[in-house]
Amino acid sequence: MVANSSCEILCIGTELLLGNITNGNARWLAEQLAALGVPHLRQGVVGDNRERLIQAVRAAAGRCRLLITTGGLGPTPDDLSTEAIAAAFGVPLVEHPEIWADIQAKVSARGGVCPPSNRKQALLPEGAEVLPNPCGTAPGMIWSPQPGFTVLTFPGVPREMRAMWEATAVPWLTAAGLAQGVFASRMLRFWGESEAALAEQMADLLALENPTVAPYAGSGEVKLRITARADSQAAANALLAPVEAELRARTGNSCYGSNDDSLASVVLALLRSRAESLAVAESCTGGGIGAALAAVPGASDVFLGGVIAYANSVKQTLLGVPAETLASHGAVSDPVAIAMAEGARQATGAHWGIAVTGVAGPGGGSAEKPVGLVHIAIAGPAGSSSEGLRFGANRDRHLIQTLTCGEALNRLRLKLIPGI
Amino acid sequence: MVANSSCEILCIGTELLLGNITNGNARWLAEQLAALGVPHLRQGVVGDNRERLIQAVRAAAGRCRLLITTGGLGPTPDDLSTEAIAAAFGVPLVEHPEIWADIQAKVSARGGVCPPSNRKQALLPEGAEVLPNPCGTAPGMIWSPQPGFTVLTFPGVPREMRAMWEATAVPWLTAAGLAQGVFASRMLRFWGESEAALAEQMADLLALENPTVAPYAGSGEVKLRITARADSQAAANALLAPVEAELRARTGNSCYGSNDDSLASVVLALLRSRAESLAVAESCTGGGIGAALAAVPGASDVFLGGVIAYANSVKQTLLGVPAETLASHGAVSDPVAIAMAEGARQATGAHWGIAVTGVAGPGGGSAEKPVGLVHIAIAGPAGSSSEGLRFGANRDRHLIQTLTCGEALNRLRLKLIPGI
Repeated sequence: MVANSSCEILCIGTELLLGNITNGNARWLAEQLAALGVPHLRQGVVGDNRERLIQAVRAAAGRCRLLITTGGLGPTPDDLSTEAIAAAFGVPLVEHPEIWADIQAKVSARGGVCPPSNRKQALLPEGAEVLPNPCGTAPGMIWSPQPGFTVLTFPGVPREMRAMWEATAVPWLTAAGLAQGVFASRMLRFWGESEAALAEQMADLLALENPTVAPYAGSGEVKLRITARADSQAAANALLAPVEAELRARTGNSCYGSNDDSLASVVLALLRSRAESLAVAESCTGGGIGAALAAVPGASDVFLGGVIAYANSVKQTLLGVPAETLASHGAVSDPVAIAMAEGARQATGAHWGIAVTGVAGPGGGSAEKPVGLVHIAIAGPAGSSSEGLRFGANRDRHLIQTLTCGEALNRLRLKLIPGI
Repeated sequence: MVANSSCEILCIGTELLLGNITNGNARWLAEQLAALGVPHLRQGVVGDNRERLIQAVRAAAGRCRLLITTGGLGPTPDDLSTEAIAAAFGVPLVEHPEIWADIQAKVSARGGVCPPSNRKQALLPEGAEVLPNPCGTAPGMIWSPQPGFTVLTFPGVPREMRAMWEATAVPWLTAAGLAQGVFASRMLRFWGESEAALAEQMADLLALENPTVAPYAGSGEVKLRITARADSQAAANALLAPVEAELRARTGNSCYGSNDDSLASVVLALLRSRAESLAVAESCTGGGIGAALAAVPGASDVFLGGVIAYANSVKQTLLGVPAETLASHGAVSDPVAIAMAEGARQATGAHWGIAVTGVAGPGGGSAEKPVGLVHIAIAGPAGSSSEGLRFGANRDRHLIQTLTCGEALNRLRLKLIPGI
């Protein structure tokens, strides 16, 4: 790896120095660079400060082949990245009329009026190319102000940065020969396993050098990323495939999918293949399971909707949960969860119903029914079942709701897998 | 603030450059420094590489008063922070017998045997003081290798770093006179304004130096953070208050809250103060509005629930939307949105109903009803109204759903504010 193929990331924004936000952009870009085989040796953060930004850009230009910046491309006075980068090399800014036209068109398509301050986003240093922004007004640039040094600028809004990276930066890196070798990677996704247990079961695979296997954990889900590097895509895939097969064989059904799959997308695909439909009845999640299903494009051929039964009265009127069942077992109980799931099927005509009822906290817990207790029921063509789970009173409301949504979808998934 | 009271953070670890972990330590330390009034101007990340670490330490020593490092203090060969920092100033390492005794005692207290590799953790540069680690074996150091420059080293394990920071670093910073004054900050939250329009309206305030006012944007919401610095908390608050009052006066009702408020929490509080209740009827958001409401602790005294009417059949059966209305206007229309909102009120007995129906995409759009078209209705005790909005077909499904949720909650908020 020669030194002058190396890359640095510079994130620009006073909010990072004040600790207002976590630098998720740096991590995301670092992962992308690793996947492309671009050596990445340093990261920096500076605020929206012209002088320090110029210093940081000049220092990077003396060290690396490629500088990637994020932030400071907006229309406000503190957005000064483009201007400061140009100034670092003493190059004037020129207006790109096509950028200004594009910004005005985007703003008016949303029914807005474009303020004059947006016009500064159409200025780029002389000689720079536009890095188009498909989902926002702030474009970036690709600029080589001196031989052997190129800077790519991205906005700080993660969604826009990612879209621009994939659409434009990756092809450019490949064409420029900076992406050395080819990576193939696969993210396997697990529900119902702890990271520690999975890592222990995979200790020999985690020690591999090519492909590498790395675990990631977060909010109930565990992921294993397999990454293989080779001279060609075919060779990288050939290295990756046997390790993926081995991982899947060892973990069985706890591996629910890969890459961009979600529990919701996998459940929808399983139901679609059976031409069956789904409804939800949600108490403590308030609509989170439905929102996860609706987040999947094309969900409407399987997901009919359902009832957010936050209040007990709604459980009765819209889901037909008997008042006696609520009175004798309490809202957080298997009988109520089953009546909710069956009620969701009946009210919507769906083949399957998922219901959740629990204590998300921080208030509302008791010795018998503590914070974190959730009952999850699945009703289907062959009957219904429910189980109470304890996610732990030390977990916060948001995590308890997230775990409940995932667990409910995973339970339906396990029922739908052929042969279980 | 004189330049030589400034601080930089340097995080050391190849896992950061590979994107395996997010740099949460940098954010946490940045927040702590801001709270102590220590000006923090730069952050850096380098891998476990001796040469680049030495370069980074030397560069910081030429710029700042205080360098805080995290990572690279462990017993393994890739942990080389202490040794490289000493080498940056040409100072030899000396063993501290009391550290080695402490490490051995800690390991044997856990029933372990201390491997010889741990012994390197007892080495510090000549003249450095120990920064004790109350919950791990790796101590840090406080070292001033040259006049006007001090380095504090911390392990990368967040729990250990935080405990050491609070127990030792904060008292040291205060005693050294680096914790200058205190900060007060307030985040004001806006819906329905673009960042550019808000910044234009606030141009004079964005130019202030103390307090500072800085804008942030993301997914439909815009925020303005006001930060004041003074010698005491009371003085900082006194600087902040008039700027906050001026911002609120200029922006009126587009400022929906501050700090940890969300649109959902503000709507719930407004309804609670009127002893009124709320239900939702969601088509294209699939439960997202309900989930946002249920995310707020204590929502249940106001939020009753509602219907996820993803399929048209559910709009008819659970919300009573007439088949003729659906047939003649289509599901994405004002008459259907109004019927849904009124249906939610009737089905649940709530005072207020919010309904949304739209084309979230990427499929399902037409020339007449493009992706991004959403109709939002509010039904209340005094009647109902609906409006069609175009969020733009170039926005992705997730953002269209997020904007729809926010816009629906904001419309109800505006109806609930006294005097509108």
